Amino acid sequence: MFTLFFSPNACSLASHIALAESGLPYQLRRVNFAKDEQRSPDYLKHNPNGRVPALVTDKGTLIESPAILAFIAQAAPEAKLAPLDDAFEFARMQGFNSYIASTVHVAYAHKRRGYRWAEKPESLEDMAAKMPRNMGDSFAVIENDLFEGPYVLGENYSVADCYLFTMADWLGGAGVDINAFPKVAEHYRRLRQRPAVQRALETEKEAAAA
Amino acid sequence: MFTLFFSPNACSLASHIALAESGLPYQLRRVNFAKDEQRSPDYLKHNPNGRVPALVTDKGTLIESPAILAFIAQAAPEAKLAPLDDAFEFARMQGFNSYIASTVHVAYAHKRRGYRWAEKPESLEDMAAKMPRNMGDSFAVIENDLFEGPYVLGENYSVADCYLFTMADWLGGAGVDINAFPKVAEHYRRLRQRPAVQRALETEKEAAAA
Ligand SMILES: N[C@@H](CCC(=O)N[C@@H](CS)C(=O)NCC(=O)O)C(=O)O
Ligand SMILES: N[C@@H](CCC(=O)N[C@@H](CS)C(=O)NCC(=O)O)C(=O)O
Repeated sequence: MFTLFFSPNACSLASHIALAESGLPYQLRRVNFAKDEQRSPDYLKHNPNGRVPALVTDKGTLIESPAILAFIAQAAPEAKLAPLDDAFEFARMQGFNSYIASTVHVAYAHKRRGYRWAEKPESLEDMAAKMPRNMGDSFAVIENDLFEGPYVLGENYSVADCYLFTMADWLGGAGVDINAFPKVAEHYRRLRQRPAVQRALETEKEAAAA
Repeated sequence: MFTLFFSPNACSLASHIALAESGLPYQLRRVNFAKDEQRSPDYLKHNPNGRVPALVTDKGTLIESPAILAFIAQAAPEAKLAPLDDAFEFARMQGFNSYIASTVHVAYAHKRRGYRWAEKPESLEDMAAKMPRNMGDSFAVIENDLFEGPYVLGENYSVADCYLFTMADWLGGAGVDINAFPKVAEHYRRLRQRPAVQRALETEKEAAAA
């Protein structure tokens, strides 16, 4: 049984969707950001970096979305959530996911988490003001270059789609119109129809309201 | 035959070292940052994100250090550069590499590449001033929590070691004393003795001087 530490609508949604798609048994544990639980000694034992997601397995705990996503795919091969038998395609998926983690997600974090990288209020404002442009630019790279269609990697659904969906879900809050990226927008609407995605969204909504 | 696009002493050094360790045939192509070649239309065909590394294979081009590193390990199983037969250990490696890409490397980039995330000269100064603290904090997480020893994952060398070495090599330029992290410092000195590491460093030094 896996345990996923998550926060509603955080990047952990990607891992949550992947678990819902996998058919594997799992439970969720909310990390309450309003109470700064991500920085509590208890949580730091799971993720010393003080972030969600973290995935507890019977062998130990995993951190970082790209690693957790690929692991879920490997733990449920019959769910076909990654090109597990093709090292090149697998690396293409990991490249996409690493681009999300190190460029797209990082761009977004400069809106509310700018204090990680600078001190002065004016710097944080400057970062927040630039964020929509960076999100737009990084989604343009996805739309024009990285996204094969109908799924991220082409014909087959994978955990990269769960991750892209999660980032696309943030675009509204980032002040970026998703319709500027027609392939991404169509993909987002299509994924919203998937039962696993609906279940994960519903569960996180309930957790946030609780 | 693989072709690695690199820039001397950039994060592409990790992939360069991994190739040197792998025993696979490869060639190098320098992307000259002084001439902004990373933004040239020719290079953007390889990496639409305008960054090194990119690895050209006979199946297509891969981007992002964590993906390229794992791919090199899979392409040369006899070199034993990753725990390829253990999904959990592999995910632990990918988690470490993703932490480097999305936190450590990103922290460092706020020194010279702050213009990615903000506009005003004062913001860039503010970011540059905070960078050493963030590099120090992220290396403390490695030293105290993520690094098993004697290698990143424990007894066995892996591409995570190539990546850690590359980041540790930046600490001096970041104004952070590596000796504040005794395990990382000892690992760094030990890796410098490896023939593959020496070969990669020498080749990049020659390229930089040419
Ligand atoms: N590179 C990490 C990033 C994780 C991350 O930044 N998570 C955010 C939520 S989206 C977080 O936990 N933030 C809490 C905080 O900054 O205090 C990953 O992909 O897992
Ligand atoms: N997440 C990427 C980051 C790549 C990256 O930022 N590379 C830097 C060199 S260390 C670069 O190409 N910078 C050129 C630029 O910013 O123009 C990876 O891990 O491959």
